[in-house]
Amino acid sequence: MRALACDLGGTNVRFGLGVDGRLDPETVVQFPNERFSDFGTALKHYFGQVRVGRVERAVVALAAPIDGDTICLTNRNWTIARAEIAEIAGTGDVVLINDFVALGAALSRAEALVTRPVLPGAAGRGVKLVLGAGTGFNASALIEGGHVLAAEIGHTGFAPEPGLETALRDHFAGRFGRCSLDRVLSGSGLVALYRVACDRSGRAAALGDAAAVTAEGAAGRDADAVLACGTLAGMLGRTAGDLALTFLPRGGIYLTGGVTGALAPFIQGPDSPFARAFLAKGRMRELMRGFTLDLVMDQSAALVGCLAWPDLPCNTVCGGRAAGPT
Amino acid sequence: MRALACDLGGTNVRFGLGVDGRLDPETVVQFPNERFSDFGTALKHYFGQVRVGRVERAVVALAAPIDGDTICLTNRNWTIARAEIAEIAGTGDVVLINDFVALGAALSRAEALVTRPVLPGAAGRGVKLVLGAGTGFNASALIEGGHVLAAEIGHTGFAPEPGLETALRDHFAGRFGRCSLDRVLSGSGLVALYRVACDRSGRAAALGDAAAVTAEGAAGRDADAVLACGTLAGMLGRTAGDLALTFLPRGGIYLTGGVTGALAPFIQGPDSPFARAFLAKGRMRELMRGFTLDLVMDQSAALVGCLAWPDLPCNTVCGGRAAGPT
Repeated sequence: MRALACDLGGTNVRFGLGVDGRLDPETVVQFPNERFSDFGTALKHYFGQVRVGRVERAVVALAAPIDGDTICLTNRNWTIARAEIAEIAGTGDVVLINDFVALGAALSRAEALVTRPVLPGAAGRGVKLVLGAGTGFNASALIEGGHVLAAEIGHTGFAPEPGLETALRDHFAGRFGRCSLDRVLSGSGLVALYRVACDRSGRAAALGDAAAVTAEGAAGRDADAVLACGTLAGMLGRTAGDLALTFLPRGGIYLTGGVTGALAPFIQGPDSPFARAFLAKGRMRELMRGFTLDLVMDQSAALVGCLAWPDLPCNTVCGGRAAGPT
Repeated sequence: MRALACDLGGTNVRFGLGVDGRLDPETVVQFPNERFSDFGTALKHYFGQVRVGRVERAVVALAAPIDGDTICLTNRNWTIARAEIAEIAGTGDVVLINDFVALGAALSRAEALVTRPVLPGAAGRGVKLVLGAGTGFNASALIEGGHVLAAEIGHTGFAPEPGLETALRDHFAGRFGRCSLDRVLSGSGLVALYRVACDRSGRAAALGDAAAVTAEGAAGRDADAVLACGTLAGMLGRTAGDLALTFLPRGGIYLTGGVTGALAPFIQGPDSPFARAFLAKGRMRELMRGFTLDLVMDQSAALVGCLAWPDLPCNTVCGGRAAGPT
């Protein structure tokens, strides 16, 4: 059976084709969303490029909670309608799933993913957790036995340390009434953190986007960018530690997301700001040392998960499958 | 088969006996821990009181992570050894589980628990979540199909709002280097919050323990106690909301714990500080309205779970069962 897999984030969209649940790497393509006016146009463009007329199933992973047949993307003004996908893909078997549900499903094939070690631990059987920062922040868990646990963790509250992080929290709380993880553990959060750092140091904010902040931070060329990158990696490590205490993922923790990847120099190694914050759980420090963390290098992980997903159960709001042709 | 169920918290210990997995309510007894020098003495006392010589199985639920045969209680200087329980109870079938795993297991018999509605929602199938504040804070989830997900959420970071809550965070971060949920969502957290409120209002802190603060707060007699109780209920509601976004518990959210129960006047009803904070998730407000919340009135819920637990799978660190007679 030929299936379309699609991973639609807030910034980029990836497409790929699979046969009998296996992704064909030669069909994988990524586009920036801004290249298209809407999702249907992007999907038609992909079908034209790979010269495919129709598929038997389409599984679309979205950065949004899935609660019906028409979904608004959380961080971009796009509407995704199953009926439109069905028409373009030529199939009534259209599945919409949360992007982190796709990543959770990909963990059922974790041995096939390209990863790089962050913290070695006593990897074993048990819950696997995937989390990551990109346009926003989220996570999901794969329960032993195959159940994917969807979440909307980006909308939970941010727990700041005193100082710079609390100033960042105050910045967002003043603007939106609260400060969620999505606001801070994201590309726009990194830029906001950099600006708050500049404000506090009395220097002008010379860098305008997350790519510039991570590049200057990694190169050590801009003191405020270095501070912002290290602080964000620490916030990410602390949050990964909080989620480790929440899911007790003895099967491993997998880090994904564009911002996470760009911060790799601040994440890898036992003395990185990420690792130090991950382990800093007071009386639970020894428990934390037992967890294994890996950085997922595989850009196609969510596509792999799209093709694995229909075989796995999930909590109720994560997916919708067509009852019949639409 | 006759089994002993035990629920050992930081402040009180409860015992009960079950036959074929059903709790006999006439055998349920609660003691304050401070009455005994150690756990073995309390257990022997119970067996003497109910005039029972031995049982075929003993399931002990503890407020601590379970990672071996000898456990130190997190919030009290007691050591719990399976070998000692085996000797006193006269059985090699001794199971140690986390107290919130027992509560999670009790959710498999949720219809039998005595509850009171907090927020009505569209209760349905799906994940069930139990959470509560007492000597410390924790939660667990029951996945549809019967898997209990253990957690150590009390050790995750506290996400304060600006103002009084941030002053409380600073108080604990200054003392311990960080501020976990255990510090604030607990009896001692309520007293600390009351003292910080008194500091800020310039009034002397007249009340010395959590029972006095909840009593004066509920009666409306002490302005700082009212503020502390309302703020703590709000913090609890916000945290319950964060955990709802983490587990998406369409099967319902159950509130337990001594402090939670004492704060009931600040928790019940759609305009309570708890309910307002639970719903205040910005763009996710409508999602939040779909969750059902109930207060568990049943003091024996963990005992019910102890008797249900051996039939349910769990993530790896939550339980240890004897491989054979010890």
